[in-house]
Amino acid sequence: MGILFAGFAAAAAAQTVDPLPSWHDSAAKKAVYAFVARVTADGSPDFVPPAERIAAFDNDGTLWSEQPVYFQLAFALDRIKALAPQHPEWKEKEPFASLLKGNVKGVLAGGEPAVFEIMMAAHAGMTTEEFAAIVKDWIATARHPKTGRPYTEMVYQPMLELLAYLRVHGFKTFIVSGGGIEFIRPWAEKVYGIPPEQVVGSSIKTRYELRDGRPVLVRLPEMDFYDDNVGKPSGIHSRIGRRPVMAFGNSDGDHQMFQWAAAGGGARLIGIVHHTDAEREWAYDRASAIGRLDKALDEANARGWTVVSMKDDWKRIFPFDPPKAP
Amino acid sequence: MGILFAGFAAAAAAQTVDPLPSWHDSAAKKAVYAFVARVTADGSPDFVPPAERIAAFDNDGTLWSEQPVYFQLAFALDRIKALAPQHPEWKEKEPFASLLKGNVKGVLAGGEPAVFEIMMAAHAGMTTEEFAAIVKDWIATARHPKTGRPYTEMVYQPMLELLAYLRVHGFKTFIVSGGGIEFIRPWAEKVYGIPPEQVVGSSIKTRYELRDGRPVLVRLPEMDFYDDNVGKPSGIHSRIGRRPVMAFGNSDGDHQMFQWAAAGGGARLIGIVHHTDAEREWAYDRASAIGRLDKALDEANARGWTVVSMKDDWKRIFPFDPPKAP
Repeated sequence: MGILFAGFAAAAAAQTVDPLPSWHDSAAKKAVYAFVARVTADGSPDFVPPAERIAAFDNDGTLWSEQPVYFQLAFALDRIKALAPQHPEWKEKEPFASLLKGNVKGVLAGGEPAVFEIMMAAHAGMTTEEFAAIVKDWIATARHPKTGRPYTEMVYQPMLELLAYLRVHGFKTFIVSGGGIEFIRPWAEKVYGIPPEQVVGSSIKTRYELRDGRPVLVRLPEMDFYDDNVGKPSGIHSRIGRRPVMAFGNSDGDHQMFQWAAAGGGARLIGIVHHTDAEREWAYDRASAIGRLDKALDEANARGWTVVSMKDDWKRIFPFDPPKAP
Repeated sequence: MGILFAGFAAAAAAQTVDPLPSWHDSAAKKAVYAFVARVTADGSPDFVPPAERIAAFDNDGTLWSEQPVYFQLAFALDRIKALAPQHPEWKEKEPFASLLKGNVKGVLAGGEPAVFEIMMAAHAGMTTEEFAAIVKDWIATARHPKTGRPYTEMVYQPMLELLAYLRVHGFKTFIVSGGGIEFIRPWAEKVYGIPPEQVVGSSIKTRYELRDGRPVLVRLPEMDFYDDNVGKPSGIHSRIGRRPVMAFGNSDGDHQMFQWAAAGGGARLIGIVHHTDAEREWAYDRASAIGRLDKALDEANARGWTVVSMKDDWKRIFPFDPPKAP
């Protein structure tokens, strides 16, 4: 009880300053505050015990940007270029040949599964530790083509505030991403405060073996699980085992996660990050190849889910942005 | 920081009474205390930050008994009997025909995978919620054939104390079981204090669909993942994403988990529950069909892992046992 009490005391103290300073005082922000109050206030008919306060967040387009291409695809392209000298056969072999010529449109048409195929093929036989080291090196050195910033600075300041606010109120924050766990986990704890065991995502299979007497897990060129679309509820069920009371996403790839979370009994908050700010970020929805938001937006409008307009609801987008005048 | 401080204060207070009262003051108990002190004491060269204090526990034979048959097999047998009237074809079809005649030896030879095959076939098409309700009903009403106790009382009191002791010291306790997540999660939080998201185990595939407009996950007759033997390190990697600093098991099915945990840098505790007490529980190891402990015992002896003798190290086995005279 001492631990819980200290948590609530910290929460109470945090109320003296606005925990979501990068959000305008709009309907979306009010919906978040109202929901958290409903599920955490003692005596509330919608009270949810701390152990059941599961909040699920998509990553690409929800916690960080996904334009002009999924950042994991940028990583894959850099890896293919780095490995090409060891694979002369790639000059003739698709999709490697197209990629090495700079043609990413074809790969993009295949979405994230196509990215996985490429990465699996290129890194089969490597250990999970070797791959994690490559991810850490890339994320520390690669720069976004438009802003010149490290990719880990292309995260949404209002969402960082939301994650922290939820945790102060006893929520366990999870990433539920179509992206790969091996790509997200090496930096998610530092950037989002989300530990590896709370990252659910797509994954490849691994094989345990002893190399020089030392146990390693070797990457196999075989998908284990695609955590997107209808896969997200299955991923939540098998990896978390509890239905989220809050789910945030930005695309039709999150639609089934929204439905699954919304169908639980009791209070629920379903949030959509709507990319409406062509000036500060990007503006896209129904017609976009990346992060298409169409059917989920219709259902959100019909059911009164919380649609967050980046342009109208957020004072700043990235941590490096100056605050916008209110 | 308030939350952490309260946690440490609680830990300090707990020191005034022995947190492991069901353990004799033997080498095993001293090894546990010494390890926890090494990894949690400020300034210790082996200090492990709370976020990295992952402790992994096998379930069958480590947290609860597994004789005369895995409890999940007892559940499967009861389910087959209950469903038999709806499946007249089972009278002719193996393994159902043998099971219905009371012959479990043949199924046992196939180990836990055989149990899964039976359960998958018998429950395909059911929703995950329906299955969870069946598990909850069974675990509340079924009785162990030898003791007549509910299966959830066939848990090891010294291990319950160990789980609680570790949590007070900032460890996150996980189950890493060859058994099924759908069988363990419905009662693990109440019995062990381990929430669903910290239960790693074998799993079946599910399919998301809308039934009468309501989202459900339907059980498919297809294995997703066998979390045993070489599967345990892969399961730990994909579901937890962090290497345990402590691993407890009781059989060769845990051998690779032991090796994987032990191979991490820094202080590690590898513990084996050795079934040595034919009077109060069961005595079995190298020659047993259930819970065979042979190669892992050799490696434990060679490397100085902590082998816990149920007979010599535990004052009581089950919560309902009277304490043994010291």
